[in-house]
Amino acid sequence: MITRDRAIELDRTDELAGFRERFLIADPDLIYLDGNSLGRLPQATIDQVQTAMVEEWGGGLVTSWRNSWMARPAEIGARLAPLIGVDPDEVLMTDQTSLNLYKLAVAALARRAPRSTVLTDSGNFPSDIYVLNGVARQAGGSVRMVGADPLAPSTSAIEAALDEQVGLVSLSHVNFKSGALLDMASITRAAHDAGALTLWDLSHSVGVVPVDLHGSGADLAVGCTYKYLNGGPGAPAFLFVARELQDQLTQPIQGWWGHEDMFGFDLDYRPAAGMARFATGTMPILSLIGAGVGIDLCVEAGISAIRNKSRALTDLMVDLFDHLPPDHGFLLGSPRDAEQRGGHVSLRHEDGFRVAQALIDRGVVPDFRAPDVIRLGAAPLYIRFVEVWDAFARLREIMESGSHLEFSPEPSGVT
Amino acid sequence: MITRDRAIELDRTDELAGFRERFLIADPDLIYLDGNSLGRLPQATIDQVQTAMVEEWGGGLVTSWRNSWMARPAEIGARLAPLIGVDPDEVLMTDQTSLNLYKLAVAALARRAPRSTVLTDSGNFPSDIYVLNGVARQAGGSVRMVGADPLAPSTSAIEAALDEQVGLVSLSHVNFKSGALLDMASITRAAHDAGALTLWDLSHSVGVVPVDLHGSGADLAVGCTYKYLNGGPGAPAFLFVARELQDQLTQPIQGWWGHEDMFGFDLDYRPAAGMARFATGTMPILSLIGAGVGIDLCVEAGISAIRNKSRALTDLMVDLFDHLPPDHGFLLGSPRDAEQRGGHVSLRHEDGFRVAQALIDRGVVPDFRAPDVIRLGAAPLYIRFVEVWDAFARLREIMESGSHLEFSPEPSGVT
Repeated sequence: MITRDRAIELDRTDELAGFRERFLIADPDLIYLDGNSLGRLPQATIDQVQTAMVEEWGGGLVTSWRNSWMARPAEIGARLAPLIGVDPDEVLMTDQTSLNLYKLAVAALARRAPRSTVLTDSGNFPSDIYVLNGVARQAGGSVRMVGADPLAPSTSAIEAALDEQVGLVSLSHVNFKSGALLDMASITRAAHDAGALTLWDLSHSVGVVPVDLHGSGADLAVGCTYKYLNGGPGAPAFLFVARELQDQLTQPIQGWWGHEDMFGFDLDYRPAAGMARFATGTMPILSLIGAGVGIDLCVEAGISAIRNKSRALTDLMVDLFDHLPPDHGFLLGSPRDAEQRGGHVSLRHEDGFRVAQALIDRGVVPDFRAPDVIRLGAAPLYIRFVEVWDAFARLREIMESGSHLEFSPEPSGVT
Repeated sequence: MITRDRAIELDRTDELAGFRERFLIADPDLIYLDGNSLGRLPQATIDQVQTAMVEEWGGGLVTSWRNSWMARPAEIGARLAPLIGVDPDEVLMTDQTSLNLYKLAVAALARRAPRSTVLTDSGNFPSDIYVLNGVARQAGGSVRMVGADPLAPSTSAIEAALDEQVGLVSLSHVNFKSGALLDMASITRAAHDAGALTLWDLSHSVGVVPVDLHGSGADLAVGCTYKYLNGGPGAPAFLFVARELQDQLTQPIQGWWGHEDMFGFDLDYRPAAGMARFATGTMPILSLIGAGVGIDLCVEAGISAIRNKSRALTDLMVDLFDHLPPDHGFLLGSPRDAEQRGGHVSLRHEDGFRVAQALIDRGVVPDFRAPDVIRLGAAPLYIRFVEVWDAFARLREIMESGSHLEFSPEPSGVT
């Protein structure tokens, strides 16, 4: 088992170690392993939001729309583009993930009509499954859901379920519970061979796993910015539409921000060329500013360096898990192979909710996903190897003392 | 004509005068008559957004969802309720106006199926018309649009266009160009008599005109918070659903925030009871905080006092307009009767864009709406009577000197 000194040594040689001080760390003793749910606050966000409030809104008033804000959704999207392997003009910041998923799924099914089946797997984020069910029903079809193996993600179940009824395959790139990473290229190829489009939810991969949408041939994608991108609570989401599809798709929520001439105020809707047509209404600027800062930090660090550290952090977690006494009752809820994992590792335990509460009580913040999943997220921009080591040491102490049994077994949690 | 001294006297006896210092006034000489597009920055917003960033996000991290943020959309909606004449549990803050309009219009048409015509008028905000067209087409129907008389709003055209095909009547309460105020009660009654539901866009009335949704019998409403509510650029919008309809409607964008048990993560969507089912995804918290501060300021001032001052401010505008030399070429683009107006007055001029630019150059910010409308908004919480007087004095000087002719005739503007 890796020693604590070795973990400290890993921090000493960590090329990303300097990024930790770019975040507000209110309590240096808190081990925050929930950056896969809500990333930390970048120091620069404090200043930039303050500037947007006081100078741009307070001082510039309505002129700031034209001088600054109107262009931000596309500008910030362009800065995100290298993190997901696309061109700068193929990404737009707008709305929230579920809304963007709806817009693109409706557009995709319309494009593939009369096909009206949406194919997904049971590892997709539940909100995505809810949205897709609504979209499919609206198109007169339904969702076909295959079982996901969270420990050994494979494309075979998806491939086997493809047929000429499937218009769209929509999946989470990284499973929100297990962290399993799907093979985007293979699945996309199979979907295309079967005549379907693909729509990926990158919420749990963007900013921690290099995403290669172009290299995979993916058609559409959405994702949030408040996890590994550290954009802040509810910061706007993004959407990607492959260039060749942009002018072939029309989205169902025809708002003025998607109009060819939004200030012309004529009464007919004419969708804008390019990505702008996938916008709807006015963007929440203060929250959008935070998304921009978080994206810039990831780009500055480099997604390849982030992925390297992420693999090392989750490898450390798996090593420490392997050395937990078997009678503590944990199961590894994530793939063993780092190539098949995203940025978090899940431990399963029948008393998982109590164990999570006991960890929080001991200054370690994981999160819990019913019925039995303790998620340990290691956001590479601010998590140190020694924190992961200490978290497992405290976990071991909890189990040895049985202190988790003092907590209520009632579940709870926030993604 | 009212004298400048009289305007100063009106400010001296203005019971709302003290609210001006609750806003950041970066340039005290700037006469900002565009609060009907983007309201000013409340001082309290600076502190509250800072607290939400540094303490709640930076310090509280993911626990702030449960301790504070999750409940905010309903809490802030409840505080807005008295401004629109409904119960606290009939309003929810969420998403943007165009998105909320889409959600409620789809739900309403589904409820009134097989009716599939949406009735609106040409004075509705263009984005609303775009959205409604998309919704009606999706339901296999179409939008029926009657002409709006911006100077003498009447219910007769709407009434005459109602028939058994109309499932939904959707209108802007206040016309974004002329400021004309529709008779919500009469139109709603006529719509109900014809078997249709009503969906009101309150963006240009909320916070400046008392809205009585209950008294009018209205079914559904949406609105933005960044105009007279001073919520900030792109602050989240609200939606209202009359209590008896809440559990009868299901919205099309089935996201997890609208689920009965959003953290249960089961794979079937079951809409929450009450207003929560009209939410979709994660809310942009920093922008939401601003909406809450702005709403609280309006409630504190009292909508009745706000309306009284608003009537007086727009009456002053009409008086000053009446005393402009006729050869200056202005037409009154708003109803003469204060009872038929919202919070702004429009002047029409064939060189309107140039005149608006010349006003900006002279320290007066109106906005311009193609082809010829100069909108003068007087937000009662921070506009002084003497500012309105001075704005018209500068307008007169511009026209006398012809200085507007130095500007380009090319139009522009932001709502």
